[in-house]
Amino acid sequence: MAKALPVTEFQDLKLSNNPKQALFKQIYEALRNKVLNGYLKPGTKLPSSRALAIQLKVSRNTVIAAFDQLLAEGYLESRTGSGTFVAVELPENWLPSPTAHFSNTSAASVQLSDYATHLDRMEMRNEEGNQTFCVGVPDLKAFPHKIWNRLSQQLPASGLTSLMGNGPAEGYQPLREAISDYVSASRSVQCDAQQIIITSGAQQALDLCARILMNPGQTAAIEEPGYKGARRALSSAGANIMTCPVDNQGLILETLKKSQHPPKLIYVTPAHQYPLGAMMPLDRRMELLDWAFEQQCWIIEDDYDSEYHYQSRPVASLQGLARQQQVIYMGSFSKVLFPSLRLGYLVLPPTLVEIFTKAKQEQTGVTPLHTQAVTAAFMQEGHFNRHLRRMRLNYEEKLKTLLEACEKLSPWCTVHAQGAGMHLALEFKPGICEGTVVRNLKTKNILCSPLSSYFYGKEKLQGLVLGFANSTLKEIASGVAIIHNVLKFPDG
Amino acid sequence: MAKALPVTEFQDLKLSNNPKQALFKQIYEALRNKVLNGYLKPGTKLPSSRALAIQLKVSRNTVIAAFDQLLAEGYLESRTGSGTFVAVELPENWLPSPTAHFSNTSAASVQLSDYATHLDRMEMRNEEGNQTFCVGVPDLKAFPHKIWNRLSQQLPASGLTSLMGNGPAEGYQPLREAISDYVSASRSVQCDAQQIIITSGAQQALDLCARILMNPGQTAAIEEPGYKGARRALSSAGANIMTCPVDNQGLILETLKKSQHPPKLIYVTPAHQYPLGAMMPLDRRMELLDWAFEQQCWIIEDDYDSEYHYQSRPVASLQGLARQQQVIYMGSFSKVLFPSLRLGYLVLPPTLVEIFTKAKQEQTGVTPLHTQAVTAAFMQEGHFNRHLRRMRLNYEEKLKTLLEACEKLSPWCTVHAQGAGMHLALEFKPGICEGTVVRNLKTKNILCSPLSSYFYGKEKLQGLVLGFANSTLKEIASGVAIIHNVLKFPDG
Repeated sequence: MAKALPVTEFQDLKLSNNPKQALFKQIYEALRNKVLNGYLKPGTKLPSSRALAIQLKVSRNTVIAAFDQLLAEGYLESRTGSGTFVAVELPENWLPSPTAHFSNTSAASVQLSDYATHLDRMEMRNEEGNQTFCVGVPDLKAFPHKIWNRLSQQLPASGLTSLMGNGPAEGYQPLREAISDYVSASRSVQCDAQQIIITSGAQQALDLCARILMNPGQTAAIEEPGYKGARRALSSAGANIMTCPVDNQGLILETLKKSQHPPKLIYVTPAHQYPLGAMMPLDRRMELLDWAFEQQCWIIEDDYDSEYHYQSRPVASLQGLARQQQVIYMGSFSKVLFPSLRLGYLVLPPTLVEIFTKAKQEQTGVTPLHTQAVTAAFMQEGHFNRHLRRMRLNYEEKLKTLLEACEKLSPWCTVHAQGAGMHLALEFKPGICEGTVVRNLKTKNILCSPLSSYFYGKEKLQGLVLGFANSTLKEIASGVAIIHNVLKFPDG
Repeated sequence: MAKALPVTEFQDLKLSNNPKQALFKQIYEALRNKVLNGYLKPGTKLPSSRALAIQLKVSRNTVIAAFDQLLAEGYLESRTGSGTFVAVELPENWLPSPTAHFSNTSAASVQLSDYATHLDRMEMRNEEGNQTFCVGVPDLKAFPHKIWNRLSQQLPASGLTSLMGNGPAEGYQPLREAISDYVSASRSVQCDAQQIIITSGAQQALDLCARILMNPGQTAAIEEPGYKGARRALSSAGANIMTCPVDNQGLILETLKKSQHPPKLIYVTPAHQYPLGAMMPLDRRMELLDWAFEQQCWIIEDDYDSEYHYQSRPVASLQGLARQQQVIYMGSFSKVLFPSLRLGYLVLPPTLVEIFTKAKQEQTGVTPLHTQAVTAAFMQEGHFNRHLRRMRLNYEEKLKTLLEACEKLSPWCTVHAQGAGMHLALEFKPGICEGTVVRNLKTKNILCSPLSSYFYGKEKLQGLVLGFANSTLKEIASGVAIIHNVLKFPDG
């Protein structure tokens, strides 16, 4: 009979009293490492569980549990009547192995996909925070948390388990209906609930469009300056980006019309051009729709903050004007409810609904059902419209305060404003260095978005984009005073 | 001075009392349609708002609001001192236009991407419900809703607004830390929190891997039979699928070793092969790791229900055994908490963290923060481990009941079972037609997954896959009795 290793060989095995590390697990790992690093050779006979338990000052059951696990995983083998052995058939070249540190070379040497290469070329997105002048964040403190929480709590009573299981990738039906009612009534979108696909924020909506409507290497047109998220979604899907300049009526069609190879899709913000604020008038809308139809080009209409028009009512959607199924309308709850809710939606031409549903299913599956259900209830019970009305007054006042405060910046800046939205663009007059201003502001804890960062091509405007919705009137006033100081005394 | 259209021309304009449709909006839409369908020609002078208000029996302000909106959008124009006119510069070819019905031809005639073509070829995924024997759904009624709701409610007090704004795409840091602690302690995964990326369920984790690690047209290896979600994610990303048969030790390496063009990645379920249940032993794990390293092939280890081993403790992960950075470990909360939570995660080699974070950011942005925060608190406070322990006992009892009930099916079926997981696979003996059985069961409200559907190639086993976690002991007994009846009397 084979001779067992003496238990004294295990006296280096120190057990910790940390309650997070079960004793059996510590023994298991210590023995496993001894096998893997070659200290316990294949075929070695282990001491009995009783002897080892005494040596380690633990109960015998603890050692047995560790042995059992090692037996189950194949590190040890048990021979009836003769004891427990290190498995003999462990591959030779694995032993000894330095499990403690593992090589760093492998991942770098393996080639990734073209998609990864496109992504890799892009800068890491700036995580915009939620501080003064951050862009795209609504007034989080003004959100009716109590109502939201009440709705959230009421749901369990009405069948929580049905909201915990699997659900439809295209979205929770009551939410699709509420959105359909809302965009039909307030945005003159022509649709029914079956055309709505719920997405994980506007970002997934863009990614779905980029993957489904075009192949890598085809052309996508965007506004210049424009929304960085759209440019990034399209670039990372491998699109050639064509930039179209904008004027005070939004996207200029000339670049599109002159191009030899018309784009497969065009991304526009006709209600409130992002970030300069222009509203596209009817005649240009019609011209765009006609041109896109002739060229078989999809239009993605991003209606990102259309709810917030202060001097007039929001302009009707481009989608509602289109007579062909060529417009894909996208909306988001990030700006009307809150960003981390991660709910967006697409209104699709009926012929595209099935393929988008499939893609949604394969990419992320259903969007969290409970969140969808709370949002649907919030809309159905009228809280959504009430909140919008309150926020319109709230933001209108903030915009007014900001515009007044910005008057004293007029020696250095021109203000792009159309009385809408949640941000304002300041364009610097020649001779002011955006980089210096942004850096100086940063030292004073004002994190502004540089206007140049909204441009893709080389011709850039310089300036600042100021989000005002999540700032108080006081923060707005003091923030502009700091900007004023930085512009007036650029050297500090 | 131009003569205005008589107000009697508007007597066909019927207004509804529906409180959901504002009067001004109804007038706006009626006039807009009259312009768009050519009834009101460019240059036509409209009646005064006062006259129209009397005709329509509404306040003058209501008509003015409608006019203002149409003026803002460019349908009308106002000439100082002479009244309101239909805009003259509307493009001729838009008028008249049938806005009421729009053409169906456009979408169909525009070509979609190759990705869409891959997707289109796939069958629509069956939305598995949450009824008896549905696969992959945990016991929803046993979930500690009260604790979950309490944690959810407590969050506002500790800074809800910080959870409402923008957040990091890679995940909420306390959740990454909780997951890192959990997989290190219970799955012997070698990682720290920086290697964790939170995803929208396992599905997004798979989609990210498919897009980042390989190009369309390259080969991906999967188990046969295997998880349909993985096959679909890989196929839709354009992968050539290579199937590797499994035996009672999991994936067989022979197909891989014989292939002229080794795959770029291989998807495996070593802890509990899906759906047949085999556990891959140590020697085969080592062989797989060695082979994959030599061939520069990524391994995706899906540890989907590794928590549920009843006769022994869960086997340590493949990732923890690997000495090279070649294993990507994926986990999900769908089976340990609930599916509609939509939380999954990847444990990545450090060199891949940045590119996966970028892709996550571009595809869906951050995963809902509030959900992540509640889950993190649930783990930190020990509820997660307690729930797992309770569910292990719960499912073990159900599995025992199911196995006992299935004994009477032995004339027709072989049971694949390894005392783990949330489902059982029954393999039919020759001569039993799976299609007929599944159809018959459906008429009796038992919706089973056919075993053949887990196969991609032509050689298929026939049988049933039974999920038991979300069924009561009574439902399990009566469900098996129905299956017994259907097998015994196939003609009803």
